Amino acid sequence: MNKQKIEVCYSPALFPYYENSDAIVVVTDILRASSAIVTAFMNGVERIIPVGTLEEAKAFKKKGFMVAAERDGIVRDFADFGNSPYNFTPERVRGNEIIYSTTNGTNAIQLASSGSQVLIGAYLNISALAKHIREAGKDLLILCAGWKNKYNLEDSLFAGALSQMVLEDPGFYTMCDATLGAVDLYDAVKGDLLGYIDKVAQRHRLKANGLDDVIGYCHEFDHTDFIPVLEENYLRLLRDNK
Amino acid sequence: MNKQKIEVCYSPALFPYYENSDAIVVVTDILRASSAIVTAFMNGVERIIPVGTLEEAKAFKKKGFMVAAERDGIVRDFADFGNSPYNFTPERVRGNEIIYSTTNGTNAIQLASSGSQVLIGAYLNISALAKHIREAGKDLLILCAGWKNKYNLEDSLFAGALSQMVLEDPGFYTMCDATLGAVDLYDAVKGDLLGYIDKVAQRHRLKANGLDDVIGYCHEFDHTDFIPVLEENYLRLLRDNK
Repeated sequence: MNKQKIEVCYSPALFPYYENSDAIVVVTDILRASSAIVTAFMNGVERIIPVGTLEEAKAFKKKGFMVAAERDGIVRDFADFGNSPYNFTPERVRGNEIIYSTTNGTNAIQLASSGSQVLIGAYLNISALAKHIREAGKDLLILCAGWKNKYNLEDSLFAGALSQMVLEDPGFYTMCDATLGAVDLYDAVKGDLLGYIDKVAQRHRLKANGLDDVIGYCHEFDHTDFIPVLEENYLRLLRDNK
Repeated sequence: MNKQKIEVCYSPALFPYYENSDAIVVVTDILRASSAIVTAFMNGVERIIPVGTLEEAKAFKKKGFMVAAERDGIVRDFADFGNSPYNFTPERVRGNEIIYSTTNGTNAIQLASSGSQVLIGAYLNISALAKHIREAGKDLLILCAGWKNKYNLEDSLFAGALSQMVLEDPGFYTMCDATLGAVDLYDAVKGDLLGYIDKVAQRHRLKANGLDDVIGYCHEFDHTDFIPVLEENYLRLLRDNK
């Protein structure tokens, strides 16, 4: 049997070196875009349309769309939402279509679209993700949104956690140093994941803006089985029929 | 007192996001270029001139220079040396000038030249490096040569080891997730560093070509106090007068 390989890409700037059109690409931006997107689908959002620039987001807002837009963690004044998962309550999102532009996350989603399927990953849906990937029997490429193209710990640790889950299936293997490093670092710190996250740079950035209330929530496992998937230029819920 | 910051860049492709003209840049390519270069200086080489392309290396060879050139670990047929530290014996290198072109290492050295000082780092000279950096009192940026712009474990672990040594000096700090990750992964595996290195991708590549005999040597600490430094377009020995 052919085994499926797992790779982790630590930064959107490295994506060209990992690109794999056969792979399921899981995009993650734990603090906070991918956690927010998973929460929005959990709470009934219909579609999320990722856009790269604030100008695009503004243009959609003028057309009457609901818009989530932040830069460096701060919600933009023209937008309806920032980047906090707590913004995406059932009352606000159920049945709606939302335009979404964030510092690192949306760019990563657009890059990833060369993969065979693009999914949004967070701790909130990690077991459902792992199950879907194992059943799909395709290569897995995890793309960390990072911070302005730099490596970040929170996305890398999630990549380690997801890789470890998928590697429990003997149909998968890795020869990718980034995957091995992510798994082993996750393994070393998972006993006190939140305590460890306390020192990451993004925690300091969020705290400086009073936005660190979501860090615990963004590291909680399995709030939902819902998996957002990219369909052409928007995210929708992955259904059983794929 | 102003503290000096430490950052680690996991891939030459990420260098633009970490570039710091005030920093001492330590370039590392543990398996095998930086270990070979440090060994060559330990054994009396006078100068090493890094060149990017095989064409440049060939042109120097025609002019009568000694040339080290490899791609994907394999010595090129026109060259005098490959990339194994064992090639650079005192008998062959003492007093000589050597042209050097490798898959990942020389490109990284050329990139790094925007720093205030460019040093070549390996376990073989790690304590001398740490001492020099602490005494210089400048920022430290460690550039991992990686593998074809991908993250690799052996360079990242060295970055963790060197960062940990320098951070013992209270005049240094880090807010860089890549540095924290490297230090913590190194810390988790340093009890059996060679056992851990057994699984890295580059070990498999070297083994497949019968070139893995140097892996133990490349992870030995402090064979020398010599530090290669980039001077214009060549490497020479760092002397007390800098």
